[in-house]
Amino acid sequence: MKNEGIALMHVAILGGTGPQGQGLALRLAMAGVETTLGSRHADRAAETASGLNEKLGGKPGSARIAGSDNAGAIRAAGRFVFLAVPYDAHHDTLTGLRPQLEGKILVDLAVPLAPGNPRAMSMPPEGSATEAAQAILGEAIPVVGALHNVSAWSLARLDDKINCDILVVGNSVDAKAEVIDLIERLGVNAYDAGPAESARCVEAVTSILIRLNISKKVPFTHAGIRIWAPGS
Amino acid sequence: MKNEGIALMHVAILGGTGPQGQGLALRLAMAGVETTLGSRHADRAAETASGLNEKLGGKPGSARIAGSDNAGAIRAAGRFVFLAVPYDAHHDTLTGLRPQLEGKILVDLAVPLAPGNPRAMSMPPEGSATEAAQAILGEAIPVVGALHNVSAWSLARLDDKINCDILVVGNSVDAKAEVIDLIERLGVNAYDAGPAESARCVEAVTSILIRLNISKKVPFTHAGIRIWAPGS
Repeated sequence: MKNEGIALMHVAILGGTGPQGQGLALRLAMAGVETTLGSRHADRAAETASGLNEKLGGKPGSARIAGSDNAGAIRAAGRFVFLAVPYDAHHDTLTGLRPQLEGKILVDLAVPLAPGNPRAMSMPPEGSATEAAQAILGEAIPVVGALHNVSAWSLARLDDKINCDILVVGNSVDAKAEVIDLIERLGVNAYDAGPAESARCVEAVTSILIRLNISKKVPFTHAGIRIWAPGS
Repeated sequence: MKNEGIALMHVAILGGTGPQGQGLALRLAMAGVETTLGSRHADRAAETASGLNEKLGGKPGSARIAGSDNAGAIRAAGRFVFLAVPYDAHHDTLTGLRPQLEGKILVDLAVPLAPGNPRAMSMPPEGSATEAAQAILGEAIPVVGALHNVSAWSLARLDDKINCDILVVGNSVDAKAEVIDLIERLGVNAYDAGPAESARCVEAVTSILIRLNISKKVPFTHAGIRIWAPGS
């Protein structure tokens, strides 16, 4: 599966009807990657997919987006299953779908924001969502944390490049390399930011960005972060 | 003290003979801010200061840098005391100098990197160096975490702008505002990244940058992070 060609690539996005999942599906479609949105309600996923395909009508060469229940989306996926459910459904979704996820890479977008205060974190006892996901799935199913810091707003603005770099974390170096390769097809830089433990920082960057973006003291919204080399 | 004019401004840098302290003193001097480097060895601080003044000879308008023991440096400071000692001396330095720090703002640069592995963190039980410092000093002496992610190498290259943004954390909004005002005189953007708890993320960004900067997979070294707004 590692050398799965882009023409054959099909990924799942669990919680794909949310804003983050929809934005990601659009970007993947534009990169020629087929997607099945998973949802607890297959009808809603199919309806959302159809709306996204319509939005993509004007973009030549874009791949199709389908909709299904979560288990069906995983079955449709070759290698990558993105997890974009709201954080309060994160653990239960993983626990329920664990058997179906064997042989896949779980790409976790979850950010454990504090309930009622998105400017702060409420990390699980494992330290981060990525670490919790890896504990739930067991070491045989690699979990890769990624795309925490990119706003749904930026993903959905298809005429603009994504305005940030992507920090990728996880305990499997090989799985991270596969995810980085996929994400870079979206036209962004993706960097290996270390093992799952680094997710304690990478997930928390989101709450700092939310704090800045809602602050009246800065002249911007929807900012991301970039790794910035000297002289660039 | 809050409206201390820049002409009268004098800051201390404890651990000022290390690379981070020296780089910061040079940048402050270029911004017209006088500095006293503090060290356990006053002679060494004076010698280092003299070398830095020599280096600044060619920069018109730059302020003087002096050297002293740590207590003397604090006495020379109006408002701001930067703490740039190696992390293994962080707690003892604060405990020993606590009485002298009353009335000052402690600006903590500490990053609790894992001993022997700068690509990982080894956070204190309080969660971060900033939180530990605040616990040691007590709430009456505000601790502000800042400048964790800027490399000594970037600070010392005086002909180039500092290549990153500065994330500033701490429980006192007023103290953070004063520190942001000072740091922005160095020609960088400084942002309020939240309370001391946010230091768990901001300090850890350093280990992720170190990981990237020593990786053979990226074409750069000495990178920093920037907050990146859409369209910029």
